[in-house]
Amino acid sequence: MADLPLDYDPYDFANRRHIGPAPQEMAAMLDELGVDSLDALIDETVPSAIRQAAPLAWAPLSEGELLDRMRAVAGRNRVMTSLIGQGYYGTITPPAIQRNILENPAWYTAYTPYQPEIAQGRLEALLNFQTMVSDLTGLEIANASLLDESTACAEAMVMAQRVAKSKAPAIFVEDTCHPQNIAVVRTRAEPLGIEVITGPASALEPARVFAAIFQYPGTHGGVRDLTDDIAALHAAGALAIVATDLLALTLLREPGAMGADIAVGSAQRFGVPMGYGGPHAAFIACHDVHKRALPGRLVGVSVDARGNRAYRLALQTREQHIRREKATSNVCTAQALLAVMASMYAVFHGPDGLRAIATRVHSRTVRLAKALRVAGAEVEPAAFFDTITVRVGVGQAGILAAARAEGINLRRVGTDRVGISLDETTDEQVLARVLRAFGIHDAPPHRGATGFPDALARTSAYLTHPVFQMNRAETEMMRYMRRLSDRDLALDRAMIPLGSCTMKLNAAAEMMPITWPEFATLHPFVPVDQAEGYAEAIADLKAKLCEITGFDDMSMQPNSGAQGEYAGLLTIRAYHRARGEGARDICLIPTSAHGTNPASAQMAGLKVVAVKAAANGDIDLEDFRAKAARAGDRLAACMITYPSTHGVFEEGVREVCAITHEHGGQVYMDGANLNALVGLAKPGEFGADVSHLNLHKTFAIPHGGGGPGMGPIGVRAHLAPHLPGHPETGGTEGPVAATPYGSASILLISWAYCLMMGGAGLTQATRVAILSANYMASRLGRDYPVLYRGRGGRVAHECILDTRPFADAGVTVDDIAKRLIDCGFHAPTMSWPVSGTLMIEPTESETKAEIDRFIDAMAAIRAEIADVEAGRITAADSPLRRAPHTVEDLVAEWDRPYSREQGCFPPGAFRVDKYWPPVGRVDNVHGDRNLICTCPPVEDAAAADHAPV
Amino acid sequence: MADLPLDYDPYDFANRRHIGPAPQEMAAMLDELGVDSLDALIDETVPSAIRQAAPLAWAPLSEGELLDRMRAVAGRNRVMTSLIGQGYYGTITPPAIQRNILENPAWYTAYTPYQPEIAQGRLEALLNFQTMVSDLTGLEIANASLLDESTACAEAMVMAQRVAKSKAPAIFVEDTCHPQNIAVVRTRAEPLGIEVITGPASALEPARVFAAIFQYPGTHGGVRDLTDDIAALHAAGALAIVATDLLALTLLREPGAMGADIAVGSAQRFGVPMGYGGPHAAFIACHDVHKRALPGRLVGVSVDARGNRAYRLALQTREQHIRREKATSNVCTAQALLAVMASMYAVFHGPDGLRAIATRVHSRTVRLAKALRVAGAEVEPAAFFDTITVRVGVGQAGILAAARAEGINLRRVGTDRVGISLDETTDEQVLARVLRAFGIHDAPPHRGATGFPDALARTSAYLTHPVFQMNRAETEMMRYMRRLSDRDLALDRAMIPLGSCTMKLNAAAEMMPITWPEFATLHPFVPVDQAEGYAEAIADLKAKLCEITGFDDMSMQPNSGAQGEYAGLLTIRAYHRARGEGARDICLIPTSAHGTNPASAQMAGLKVVAVKAAANGDIDLEDFRAKAARAGDRLAACMITYPSTHGVFEEGVREVCAITHEHGGQVYMDGANLNALVGLAKPGEFGADVSHLNLHKTFAIPHGGGGPGMGPIGVRAHLAPHLPGHPETGGTEGPVAATPYGSASILLISWAYCLMMGGAGLTQATRVAILSANYMASRLGRDYPVLYRGRGGRVAHECILDTRPFADAGVTVDDIAKRLIDCGFHAPTMSWPVSGTLMIEPTESETKAEIDRFIDAMAAIRAEIADVEAGRITAADSPLRRAPHTVEDLVAEWDRPYSREQGCFPPGAFRVDKYWPPVGRVDNVHGDRNLICTCPPVEDAAAADHAPV
Repeated sequence: MADLPLDYDPYDFANRRHIGPAPQEMAAMLDELGVDSLDALIDETVPSAIRQAAPLAWAPLSEGELLDRMRAVAGRNRVMTSLIGQGYYGTITPPAIQRNILENPAWYTAYTPYQPEIAQGRLEALLNFQTMVSDLTGLEIANASLLDESTACAEAMVMAQRVAKSKAPAIFVEDTCHPQNIAVVRTRAEPLGIEVITGPASALEPARVFAAIFQYPGTHGGVRDLTDDIAALHAAGALAIVATDLLALTLLREPGAMGADIAVGSAQRFGVPMGYGGPHAAFIACHDVHKRALPGRLVGVSVDARGNRAYRLALQTREQHIRREKATSNVCTAQALLAVMASMYAVFHGPDGLRAIATRVHSRTVRLAKALRVAGAEVEPAAFFDTITVRVGVGQAGILAAARAEGINLRRVGTDRVGISLDETTDEQVLARVLRAFGIHDAPPHRGATGFPDALARTSAYLTHPVFQMNRAETEMMRYMRRLSDRDLALDRAMIPLGSCTMKLNAAAEMMPITWPEFATLHPFVPVDQAEGYAEAIADLKAKLCEITGFDDMSMQPNSGAQGEYAGLLTIRAYHRARGEGARDICLIPTSAHGTNPASAQMAGLKVVAVKAAANGDIDLEDFRAKAARAGDRLAACMITYPSTHGVFEEGVREVCAITHEHGGQVYMDGANLNALVGLAKPGEFGADVSHLNLHKTFAIPHGGGGPGMGPIGVRAHLAPHLPGHPETGGTEGPVAATPYGSASILLISWAYCLMMGGAGLTQATRVAILSANYMASRLGRDYPVLYRGRGGRVAHECILDTRPFADAGVTVDDIAKRLIDCGFHAPTMSWPVSGTLMIEPTESETKAEIDRFIDAMAAIRAEIADVEAGRITAADSPLRRAPHTVEDLVAEWDRPYSREQGCFPPGAFRVDKYWPPVGRVDNVHGDRNLICTCPPVEDAAAADHAPV
Repeated sequence: MADLPLDYDPYDFANRRHIGPAPQEMAAMLDELGVDSLDALIDETVPSAIRQAAPLAWAPLSEGELLDRMRAVAGRNRVMTSLIGQGYYGTITPPAIQRNILENPAWYTAYTPYQPEIAQGRLEALLNFQTMVSDLTGLEIANASLLDESTACAEAMVMAQRVAKSKAPAIFVEDTCHPQNIAVVRTRAEPLGIEVITGPASALEPARVFAAIFQYPGTHGGVRDLTDDIAALHAAGALAIVATDLLALTLLREPGAMGADIAVGSAQRFGVPMGYGGPHAAFIACHDVHKRALPGRLVGVSVDARGNRAYRLALQTREQHIRREKATSNVCTAQALLAVMASMYAVFHGPDGLRAIATRVHSRTVRLAKALRVAGAEVEPAAFFDTITVRVGVGQAGILAAARAEGINLRRVGTDRVGISLDETTDEQVLARVLRAFGIHDAPPHRGATGFPDALARTSAYLTHPVFQMNRAETEMMRYMRRLSDRDLALDRAMIPLGSCTMKLNAAAEMMPITWPEFATLHPFVPVDQAEGYAEAIADLKAKLCEITGFDDMSMQPNSGAQGEYAGLLTIRAYHRARGEGARDICLIPTSAHGTNPASAQMAGLKVVAVKAAANGDIDLEDFRAKAARAGDRLAACMITYPSTHGVFEEGVREVCAITHEHGGQVYMDGANLNALVGLAKPGEFGADVSHLNLHKTFAIPHGGGGPGMGPIGVRAHLAPHLPGHPETGGTEGPVAATPYGSASILLISWAYCLMMGGAGLTQATRVAILSANYMASRLGRDYPVLYRGRGGRVAHECILDTRPFADAGVTVDDIAKRLIDCGFHAPTMSWPVSGTLMIEPTESETKAEIDRFIDAMAAIRAEIADVEAGRITAADSPLRRAPHTVEDLVAEWDRPYSREQGCFPPGAFRVDKYWPPVGRVDNVHGDRNLICTCPPVEDAAAADHAPV
């Protein structure tokens, strides 16, 4: 009898599936580096002073075990019908959209569309979103999503303060706004010194405020004409912000028509599951005149090198990575994937369908109100869309319980009322169950009447663009989604070696649970006993993240990395104030920091003092020491990134922390590069007081074409009491996001990742990420200067290549980036943190074969640069400048001094499976000079390929 | 207060999603036809003599309602751990494969790869499948799937009879074969006059048989060396067929090494869920010398016009559409999608992973056997892989009940034994539960010993081709699957206007339930009380299909259309025999019939008499009458297709039926064109006695790139007692498929389709299919002769264009088909049922815009033909002959008398979103002359793009 070998584990997710290089590949990579083992490389690279003592301990699960565990946890959530409203509504995700977008890696693994030539598909979908929001709100410009409605209110406040003629110090927030909107606005206003006045409409004093925020329809359902209030604000030089509901606007007069300056809201009920709080796409819309103050990403229309239509991100100079502490917003991650879903929902239903859906919802609400009134109930308000509030007095608990017995959650309002919000999932059975909870057994028939006055009825058209009028047969919709996705290059086709952005595998098993109804359909404010599965998942994820980071507590609320920074700084601020040291207002930030750092510091009311970099790129310790001393007892915090944004494990990190602490400051560690530390070193142990974690970078949440993300913050124990609170769950501090756990449903992705990797797998991922980066640096270093290195010449998990030496020859970093598209690659991070450079991060998930393909491409590009340097070809005529090459170039007359073959099939490019960009190089200047941010007319010569009817 | 309009139903699946043309499009199409209304068109087209009186009555469900209903039904199935074995095993579908293949329309909506230029991706995946089967079985040639293991046994029997030197009249089937294999072989043997001898190995008398079938491992787990038995068979001129298990063969000596001539089996446990019986891919492998007798589809390697490697279907002349009644098999639909999944499972795990999985399964089985023996149980057999049988005497019921109490199904064997089959999902917990059912509380540790003798251990290598050695990181696998799918043109990118094949929408909502665990994980032979959800679904689907067809009963067993034909004819045969009219053996079949018809008749022991076509393409009634009269009391049946395969509603159908009945025959109606009748006419009412339904054509099961399908048969009451039975469920007749309900899980797709469409929606689909076909015929008829028309010049749901007039100019139907690829279309059905024609079927799901795009393409092609006819260009130089055009053509020297623009962007082609075929025109002759049916070596110059490590 032969022995059976059992050493190979086919279900080892970490080493067989997630980590790219196979063992023999790793051996070859170590050879290149001249080290004997991965252990040796890590010992050389990561300072011993910060290494953690004990390894991460939990055992891994296989994919099958994970899904079993997830099913058990899902079973602990109770799926009820939630009619709680308050900004979150049941919705029907069209299955074609769920399958072809939300569950399709071509969409969910894409990066933010900064490289427009490889992102035309999602840019078109986002332009559809902007058009939809613009049309429905009646304002000319809308952006391509914000994090949630509450933060959108806060963003609108800051924007209004910037552009309003009135310099009054306060903002009015009508008390009919959703409680979480009011709370987040308060949180945001306080460090900025803005006074928040809340009260009924009658309390509005236009002269005292620079803006007012109205909710339309209001949180308790009321709709009223805001025209007069808005006119009064305008007369005082103040602006009107309307938080609104897209579905309601298909029937109700649009904010723009009432004079509103800014409209915000959520697109959640356009087919995006509630997911216990998110992610969903919020929107903000404004008049053209204010476009340069609009936060977040904005898609615009431009042309490519052949003059064909091309989409791109517009007005990028507004963004925080350009403006830094002068930015009014730190918005970076948006909710692109959810904005795409919502826009497809609108395309799928079209204006007729949306109006029909709204009409059904409204009609049932009218019937509900009538039935309740007939039965003697006191129903408010007089005019409503989908929400009514019933005065039930001491019967509140009884009614809520009776509804729950019917499988329905109503909203508890004060102590004597209940709120009922209907939605597109509310069918006759649900209506009957609601009525039974009130002891009513007959629903009145439809009478065809509306529940609001004619004056509030919408009269203008919307979604008139052909894309919303196309034939909505599923066949046509499926093909439209496929065509758009085929235009894009995402992680499902090639490595995206974006330094700092960590484009690693988003495994299918990690993505599966999020669309299960037990996770997808929960309202964020359901009673906790209906969300025990979520509670278990969040608690275990938190425990694991605390173990990984060495922190004592964590808030899962921030729903982006930048928001995590902001929340972390607020926590520090609150801590200082609680100790009577509220005067601490200086934040030291190295010049190499992410642009979000200074922007967040500014939002938290801190003054940014920049710290210089030493010649080797590290923080200049002398400068740091001097500036900390100068700040003295005004030092609130420093913000550092570790490993540094230069891709180096700086040896002096403990000293930076010590200096900060010496002067009474707190250390904020940007978690962007945590993926170089997991399992090797714990920020909470080597000096950080607070840090955000980019779950969408380090912990496998996909980038979704520019969001969603999650940015929970870990803190040491002394900061724990000052973490963000929330009106629904309590806490001493205000909330930073609309819901207690942010985009709760995607926490499951990171949890799944942690569970399947196990502690050892996560650690190995870190080690391999460092190995791959050093292998890249070593091989690419032969052709391109590697700008920064740490001890022993090693980089951390990424490396920066200097392309400035080619400037003399006229070759730019852009040329290299666009030429990489010809090779079938998304460009690395460009000109950040140093202009004229490329920052490359392979991550642990890429195989050596793919890394080598990239190295071959870069080597060939270097040879093309040499041709220019040697005068064999001019930069303007070179394949570098003419890149990317398109099929149009091949079909047209070939007027170039190099061959078609060289142009289109440089080393690295696949032959059979080549990715062809749908447009040539996009003209950015043209786009910003001729700003168009909604769908252009189809008669435009360069109209896209879909054939609307 | 304004009135609310409620007339637009946004959730109307039939009219808003499934049916392509919007109302205004239908109006324009009717205009083209010069009729006032759809009613008028239908009245003109469908003979009043056959119209049904009452409309189909059930109400439709929305997508949301469907999923709710499906969840409720799913909840009625009980998910237990089934260790029943008998050919079906738990398996872990890698999530990346589930998401990126089974749930991805790019894979599941593809058609059979008859057009190789647009099918290189799935052809490569199927070649991988063939290579995997060939390697594991140790035989040189394997096909690209059969329906299930039992029918594969039957196919192997027929194949062996054809090629064996021995002309003995019997086949030996060892009694260790799975009961369903024995039963299906018996069913198949009887009409062919083959005697089936079953018994233990000792009963084998080689001189009496032309072949023997062994099961290895046997149904009760035993493995033995078959070498001597096989040698004895060979000595007698007989062949050895081995039904085997791919996972076992990773550890056990392969059939080829023991001398086997043919190996068959199922690839189910390679990642394909059990699905209560299917679908799964069965395989058949043989020696090179017998390849021309191999049934089913076979992928081979050839070259394209540039000499680059290209895959294609090989040796198509073997197939039944060529050989008709001379074919040895009627196999048409295979299980391509499942074969692709299984092949990806092998690529994903590689030989190391498969061996590790098999080793785990085997090791646990060894431990289980030992624990039972230690506890005093009598365990058989002595040598085994994953299955053991325990003699429990009168304790059988108690053990089975104890196991069920542990959540485990064991196999009931005889009256005194239980069988236990382990699989890759059997973990330590499951092992412990099994032992507890026997009162044992300790599992022994692993000792590293095998449960079979060394002589049976596999010594040869397998899966050595680089595709099975590639880096199996999920990132790499995801990209490999994406690249393959991008090479193909499926329904998710363009209309596939295949006459007869009905490529209609496969809606996302219809596809969702099949991967839910409650449906996916059920073993086909679980106790019925665990499958009540399936029972409900199948019963309701059956009721609806009976209502649609007018039949009284139905068998859901046949798992392909061709198998439905065969089953239907067997039913007729059994009916005649039961009435003492067994001498009836003549089957009248029109010359225009599907090739499967005569092949099926031959399989059912019937003699085919061909009936001529009249000049107008209809059945020649005089000829039919004469041949029926001549057959007299030998007339068993006629087989007709309605509407005819010429795409016409023949007026004489009732008369054909009447003549048949007059002579005591039964009417078999081929259901291929039932989609032209649903809701308008019922075959069971206008004369048919039996008919199969192609659920994968008319009822929305996707084609899957060449399967799966389902072909249930409806019968009138007198035939019901003679429908197929099954060893597991009883019945007087033998089974035609391995499981009682065939590929049960995909019945859910058709059920979902019927539920969402409602009776009225299904009827409207039929009407619009007829409208679209007539619109096509009308517009295309200006450029191409429409070969057959019915009353009033109308066609039914498809039309045939004659391209023979272009033969004089040297333009072939192939040229047109390949040129359509340049326009972004899959070709229509070519040269069937008439050589030199194109048969076009738009189906109801295509929009007018897409249909018009096709018409534009065809008009432009006609103009290009005119250029050849007029001598402006030679056929050989024309874009027709040089089609399809590839990127390689654009990159290379352009040596053609027409422009790149004309070549690559003919009317119909998308500009931005153009589909580029990965290869030029494929050389079929080269491929058949140089047959290669396993993965070619990578050093081959034209190697594909993936980069194995």
